[in-house]
Amino acid sequence: MSTLGIDLGGTKILAAVVSEGRVLDRVRVDTPQTGFADVVAAMAGAARELISRGHEVTAVGVGSPGPLDHERGRVVWAPNIAGMVDAPVVDALREELGLPVALENDANAAGYAEHLYGAAKGLRSSVYVTLSTGIGGGLFVGETLVRGAHGLAGEIGHITLLPGGPMGGDGHTGSLEAIAAGRSIARDASYAYGQPMNTIEVFERARAGERKALGIVENAALFTGIGLANIQKVFDPEAFVLGGGLTAAGDFYLDRVKAAARRYLEGFCEPVFLMAVLGGDAGAIGAAAVAERELAGRR
Amino acid sequence: MSTLGIDLGGTKILAAVVSEGRVLDRVRVDTPQTGFADVVAAMAGAARELISRGHEVTAVGVGSPGPLDHERGRVVWAPNIAGMVDAPVVDALREELGLPVALENDANAAGYAEHLYGAAKGLRSSVYVTLSTGIGGGLFVGETLVRGAHGLAGEIGHITLLPGGPMGGDGHTGSLEAIAAGRSIARDASYAYGQPMNTIEVFERARAGERKALGIVENAALFTGIGLANIQKVFDPEAFVLGGGLTAAGDFYLDRVKAAARRYLEGFCEPVFLMAVLGGDAGAIGAAAVAERELAGRR
Repeated sequence: MSTLGIDLGGTKILAAVVSEGRVLDRVRVDTPQTGFADVVAAMAGAARELISRGHEVTAVGVGSPGPLDHERGRVVWAPNIAGMVDAPVVDALREELGLPVALENDANAAGYAEHLYGAAKGLRSSVYVTLSTGIGGGLFVGETLVRGAHGLAGEIGHITLLPGGPMGGDGHTGSLEAIAAGRSIARDASYAYGQPMNTIEVFERARAGERKALGIVENAALFTGIGLANIQKVFDPEAFVLGGGLTAAGDFYLDRVKAAARRYLEGFCEPVFLMAVLGGDAGAIGAAAVAERELAGRR
Repeated sequence: MSTLGIDLGGTKILAAVVSEGRVLDRVRVDTPQTGFADVVAAMAGAARELISRGHEVTAVGVGSPGPLDHERGRVVWAPNIAGMVDAPVVDALREELGLPVALENDANAAGYAEHLYGAAKGLRSSVYVTLSTGIGGGLFVGETLVRGAHGLAGEIGHITLLPGGPMGGDGHTGSLEAIAAGRSIARDASYAYGQPMNTIEVFERARAGERKALGIVENAALFTGIGLANIQKVFDPEAFVLGGGLTAAGDFYLDRVKAAARRYLEGFCEPVFLMAVLGGDAGAIGAAAVAERELAGRR
């Protein structure tokens, strides 16, 4: 008996047959940018392909970017997928596949997979932090994915750390994401150097010791560390699981993040940092896990 | 069948016989400032007085200020009680009274009482915030008091909101407490006016429209609101319960706090604010509730 986990990304859709947190089979297709109906057709097609290979699937979980309306099973808005506005993913996929469908935020899904089966396996509580183009996260205790009263729990990219600081995509100044996400690092470097610059180049220049690039990277690491320390002081997880594209910068970046978090937690506790281990499968595994638990009424 | 709740404060000890969140009887004594042994004797004396009145008590809960060592049942350090350093409250009281004893942080205890029996009764989740000389809090979900992995959960006075800002009692700059607690308001006014000034006088001057006092009060309200918005973005409770001395300033202050929180939550959710209703009994009621649940193995 297995579950289908679908990770809906801005460029790729990964559909995977998952059992006890292990991927038994997978199909990857491009994400259509031609409207919601085509996105649903692509997800359903990938699912049918897997089912046609003989996998017995009892439920489907979808991990999607963007704010979700859990009650109505809809994606309110997915920034990187054309036509995904107030999109009834749960109803549409259930109709296509004739299976129960659960919907979860993609960062929550990836973090849930790491909590149950990956880096934080065996821990009572963890907070997943994805440091990427944006900054997201998820809170986990026991087998519970903490969604909060408005599905807002774990929106750690949006906590305010510098009122009056840079304006973020949320329309607020000084959020962690607006200071320290990949897109923010690129923005600051493009301004400081007076030429367009992507995040990878900023890190290359920082490693080479260029003062401006290094300053930008160190500032992002400092505020990320302060953000993690704040989460420790509010929710106090056993460990943080770090994932996302910026972690590819390795110790050069993460050592600075950890040092800042430790500094702002001095006198309180010693934080624990783990690296995400499930890679590109995390979203699909987590979406399947949400479907299993939600549809079995265990959540 | 009832439980004894003891609220250990810097000036008073309140011992109360509690049943289902209601206080059946109480004794109040001064807090000795002559060492730990005398504090234990005072707590035990108040407990015996209540027991001698015929109340049948099966367990004791103590709410104490300061960081606690839950595993060893000790108060690590209580700032306002002389001699309370690494103090084995649980062992000492159990020996005196022959009853099981539970220990909890005083803000957590008060918040737990409000969550179970007071302002947040019937809600699934709440965050208690005490705005006072310092700023503290507690997180609650269902019947669970969220302590976190290091007992640090809910230490919301210590979240960093202005790196490089004023130095706090925790040795870190720019914490919510160092910016917006009663003691910080008095500090800022004393500096701005060049003369010692207490928090009450600052509020009086602010109400009278004095520019410096009003600026200090508005700044404290702004950062308190930002702190609450951050907690919503991390933990997303159904409601905040506001308590502590600064709430006595009423709508003049709280309307500004709520407006700031709403502003920083625009586009995310509409936060809910409730006023604490249990007053001076909250700590004792919550300590009793902790004892009931902990000693019944229900937590």
